[in-house]
Amino acid sequence: VIVVVCLNPALDITYQVPAVTWGGVNRPSAVYARPGGKGLNVARTLHALGAEVLLMGLAGGPTGSGIEDALAQLEVPTAFTPIAAGTRRTLTVVEGTVIEGIVVEGTGVTTAFNEPGPPVSAREYTEFRARYEKALAGSAAVVLSGSLPTGLAADTYATLVETATTAGVPTVLDTHGEALLLGTAAGPAIVKPNLEELEKLAGRRLSNLHGPDLAAVSVAADRLRLMGAQAVVASLGADGLLAATGDSYWRARPATTMAGNATGAGDAVVAALAHGLVLDRPWDDRLRHAAALGAAAVAAPVAGEFSKADYASALRAVAVHRNEVS
Amino acid sequence: VIVVVCLNPALDITYQVPAVTWGGVNRPSAVYARPGGKGLNVARTLHALGAEVLLMGLAGGPTGSGIEDALAQLEVPTAFTPIAAGTRRTLTVVEGTVIEGIVVEGTGVTTAFNEPGPPVSAREYTEFRARYEKALAGSAAVVLSGSLPTGLAADTYATLVETATTAGVPTVLDTHGEALLLGTAAGPAIVKPNLEELEKLAGRRLSNLHGPDLAAVSVAADRLRLMGAQAVVASLGADGLLAATGDSYWRARPATTMAGNATGAGDAVVAALAHGLVLDRPWDDRLRHAAALGAAAVAAPVAGEFSKADYASALRAVAVHRNEVS
Repeated sequence: VIVVVCLNPALDITYQVPAVTWGGVNRPSAVYARPGGKGLNVARTLHALGAEVLLMGLAGGPTGSGIEDALAQLEVPTAFTPIAAGTRRTLTVVEGTVIEGIVVEGTGVTTAFNEPGPPVSAREYTEFRARYEKALAGSAAVVLSGSLPTGLAADTYATLVETATTAGVPTVLDTHGEALLLGTAAGPAIVKPNLEELEKLAGRRLSNLHGPDLAAVSVAADRLRLMGAQAVVASLGADGLLAATGDSYWRARPATTMAGNATGAGDAVVAALAHGLVLDRPWDDRLRHAAALGAAAVAAPVAGEFSKADYASALRAVAVHRNEVS
Repeated sequence: VIVVVCLNPALDITYQVPAVTWGGVNRPSAVYARPGGKGLNVARTLHALGAEVLLMGLAGGPTGSGIEDALAQLEVPTAFTPIAAGTRRTLTVVEGTVIEGIVVEGTGVTTAFNEPGPPVSAREYTEFRARYEKALAGSAAVVLSGSLPTGLAADTYATLVETATTAGVPTVLDTHGEALLLGTAAGPAIVKPNLEELEKLAGRRLSNLHGPDLAAVSVAADRLRLMGAQAVVASLGADGLLAATGDSYWRARPATTMAGNATGAGDAVVAALAHGLVLDRPWDDRLRHAAALGAAAVAAPVAGEFSKADYASALRAVAVHRNEVS
């Protein structure tokens, strides 16, 4: 079983409004509500890949129940620890009509309102910890993904990584800010930052008009590795992946850029990396699958989904290169 | 017991955002979620007045459960019939910070997104009807309030009025459009349109710069009475109430205009009219209480609430005048 930890899930609500009247009353022409949060996308992708998965986290209030119901319908096994406060919503207002990720009417301007995560009491988190430790017995890997809700310490992922490592279970970490730095220092098997996160760590832009500055990205990724991660895989959007694995740097590039919805593409990469880790694939294979699944996720209209045909065709077209560290 | 029918309740979500970035990602500084819908406000107001009340309607999905939980916390007795589709949300984005109805920061520009009501199956509505008929036995009055969800016929309120009348239970109707016209023809005890609704029926404006044209409003209100209502009470915002009761026209005016939030003021008027009906108050008393409660509701920051001190002081200051029909 791959345990996916999602401490701050969300109900992602989307309103399509033909033409938004700012300061007025609007009637959405379409309303979508889907379970969201990075860990949920990872778990759904792993489930679609045929991996045994268990999604753990914190859920509260009617919004939390709604997320659990929706995941049950998708047949993703979950074990959420209940909390008193309500799980957060995100609201996206799209001006126009979007079908399969393509704006067919209106400006397509997208405005997001992201609620803060709910407060979590010490007792609730202790309950989650106990369940997490139990789940580690017999699990093949742990994925720790997304933001932390209000009230959880920045070193939360760090202690979850340490607990898993002590139990002999490798971890994949995908988060940002302090939680990323502290979690990385705890020694996860793989850390997956994106370009924006590496830029924040480097304190400067790592790309120019022609795309990412690969030498600079390598240095930034290696810095995270030296902090404690066994390997760092940076996701570079349409430019694919760059990995620092200690003995080598790797590049994996999809042959063609797929048009679509980039939300959830990084989560597909994380799912593929965890899957490759559990299957003990060599690094070139892991990165080929991760880049292909990321590309297929972009082509899918909904985060957390991909078409098997897109995945298969992307897989044939990924180019992986290795530079050994001299 | 006063039965309040709310077929299309809502979860009213409010985001306060210091400065909205249109086309960007916004993080609300405050998030509020409250049960809403006109019938809910009426039931809460009646409950606060000390009347025995039962709120009936349709509720589905996690949003429906959330509304039921919130009403249980407010100790308002409910008997919702479950439906498969999810109860609607309304989202209001307020640019700035609003405390007790006063904009203390930002532009205060308010943008609303109102989801359509859920579809209701014939079987679900039949179940509601059966429960409604049972509840009529022993009830003193019925209030029918607000819009109808998708899939319910425009004559829904009309048949509910007829059923109550057959059972000897008087009804108060507050809705709009076709449902108002058909419901009025079924002969409710009181219909409460607002100025906007009367203008729609009249096909022209019924007010000028100085306020409502009372002669024209009287004609429009009387037209609804002649269609079948036993009495019509028009709510005119800060200008109070105008009633057509067959033998008389009445005016009830609060002495001073209270600043605040007009949402829910009409619902407070409806609650007071139902209360006066059940207590068998004479019309001048009914209208005095209704105008005072409407004014007190405006002063309260949240729809469905009022302060007893505001109500008492408004009550002393309402002027009621009667013109007998010659």
